[in-house]
Amino acid sequence: MNQYYKNTTVNINGNIVSDQDAQISVFDRGFLFGDSVYEVSYSRDNSLLFWTEHLDRLKNSAMLLNMDISFSDDEITHEVLKTLKESNLKNAYFRIIVTRGCSEISLNPNIATHNNLIIIVMPKPVYKQEMYTDGIELLLSNIHRNSLKSTNPNAKSGNYLNNVMAINEAKKLGLYDSIMVNADGELTEGTSFNLWLVKDDQILTPKQNSGLLLGITRDKILRFKQVNNKMIQEQLLYPKDLELSQEMFITSATRGVMPVKSVIVENKKINFKSIHTTQEIQKIYDNYVSDHIKKTSFKY
Amino acid sequence: MNQYYKNTTVNINGNIVSDQDAQISVFDRGFLFGDSVYEVSYSRDNSLLFWTEHLDRLKNSAMLLNMDISFSDDEITHEVLKTLKESNLKNAYFRIIVTRGCSEISLNPNIATHNNLIIIVMPKPVYKQEMYTDGIELLLSNIHRNSLKSTNPNAKSGNYLNNVMAINEAKKLGLYDSIMVNADGELTEGTSFNLWLVKDDQILTPKQNSGLLLGITRDKILRFKQVNNKMIQEQLLYPKDLELSQEMFITSATRGVMPVKSVIVENKKINFKSIHTTQEIQKIYDNYVSDHIKKTSFKY
Repeated sequence: MNQYYKNTTVNINGNIVSDQDAQISVFDRGFLFGDSVYEVSYSRDNSLLFWTEHLDRLKNSAMLLNMDISFSDDEITHEVLKTLKESNLKNAYFRIIVTRGCSEISLNPNIATHNNLIIIVMPKPVYKQEMYTDGIELLLSNIHRNSLKSTNPNAKSGNYLNNVMAINEAKKLGLYDSIMVNADGELTEGTSFNLWLVKDDQILTPKQNSGLLLGITRDKILRFKQVNNKMIQEQLLYPKDLELSQEMFITSATRGVMPVKSVIVENKKINFKSIHTTQEIQKIYDNYVSDHIKKTSFKY
Repeated sequence: MNQYYKNTTVNINGNIVSDQDAQISVFDRGFLFGDSVYEVSYSRDNSLLFWTEHLDRLKNSAMLLNMDISFSDDEITHEVLKTLKESNLKNAYFRIIVTRGCSEISLNPNIATHNNLIIIVMPKPVYKQEMYTDGIELLLSNIHRNSLKSTNPNAKSGNYLNNVMAINEAKKLGLYDSIMVNADGELTEGTSFNLWLVKDDQILTPKQNSGLLLGITRDKILRFKQVNNKMIQEQLLYPKDLELSQEMFITSATRGVMPVKSVIVENKKINFKSIHTTQEIQKIYDNYVSDHIKKTSFKY
């Protein structure tokens, strides 16, 4: 058995498939060119978290890549719920991949006519408790985030080498992960998470036009508007702002709110002094999630 | 039968596979993240063209992505020749893809341990004769080529959305393909070919540090050094150089030397006046290829 298939449930174009069938044609453009879009989310107590938002973002990623999605919202939702039910997991991680489909081997995207829809469900990853209490160690990578004018980071696509290379730099140094600037030196995002700084009376995250994925957790936190008398807002941020901040944290769908202990910038370690405000936001966000989970109609 | 499998021969990790087995695991990083490298070349009269150069470039792409290749040169060569032989094609197109392999779903590349090697063989595409006599019509895309500091264009990888988006712009206008500048406005390359300008007494191609794939055909032509009393060299080039040139042509492994009739730059069409020097280079290159084909020891 494929070891990676263990504990997973895979749905390809509506069919729950066995280990040896959890495969895709070598003529699929997702495989040939990374010509695909995806979303990652999870379920808790058999309920989907922010499903409408994830489905909207999947469609937005496709739109940014001029990719038509031949599956309706209801079809995708139905297949996600079906796969989750089949997994027998109450709390699951799931990944939805929509590729532009198979085609002749040519870059021209217009020759592909049928999307492929792949859903992978597995147990929700458990992050070590100390990551939430002590914080994680990050690197400011030498690799620049892809530019908005080349490969738009707001399209969550099958082109992730930029991020793979950046996390690899961090791993070589024994660090958890990397954050990246754009070509103008502005902070953008981590390889799979958004960034936040607690700086005096503000809680700040890089602006959309620095080139980053508009995280769903990021959006929820921006809507809190104010925590502990600190204004929550987007701002152009630079590496020098790391030194001027008291706290740093990251957000992502699977991690929620996670504090950052330190960032290495040009061989110099910047330590953050506190996680007080981060813990406040964690608490507010966790309550928000719990409320949402109780209310959502997307259950299985 | 999968329509794209028609007339193709597919080898996966040393096994020539049938239509329904020409598939790859959904846990392969090539599929999940475009975490793969590839080469395209062809055979003529059962002989490989510039095989050593393609194999070296495959390894260089992997090196640029910190990817170890667990297959030896001899193994890859053996599998390529075996697949070509199996295809019964004297003149074939072939694509070699090496992925970082399957892994848990995590960006961290170090968790993948076994590469997957995929070889796809099919009849060599035939380009219309008029493309060689009249030239092709190109667009200067609004999309910038990926930066050397983000996703190095000199690694021929599974991340090709940048190019897919650029060719799509050209197709919308009914043009053949697109060329791209980098963020500094320097000409780089086309979506799957290198660029050349014939400008007064020079034959020029963009410099490596503008961010481009070092084409093997490009390299061969640079080695000609001089044609028709015109010096052949790399140079920083800008869109304004298009207007100042008498001829333009493109090069790629499958196309060889192909003249350009016009380029649309900011809604203005630049027409090239001549294809005289291009045809000289075509002739010299075609002779060079014929000589090489006769001499190479890589035959099947």
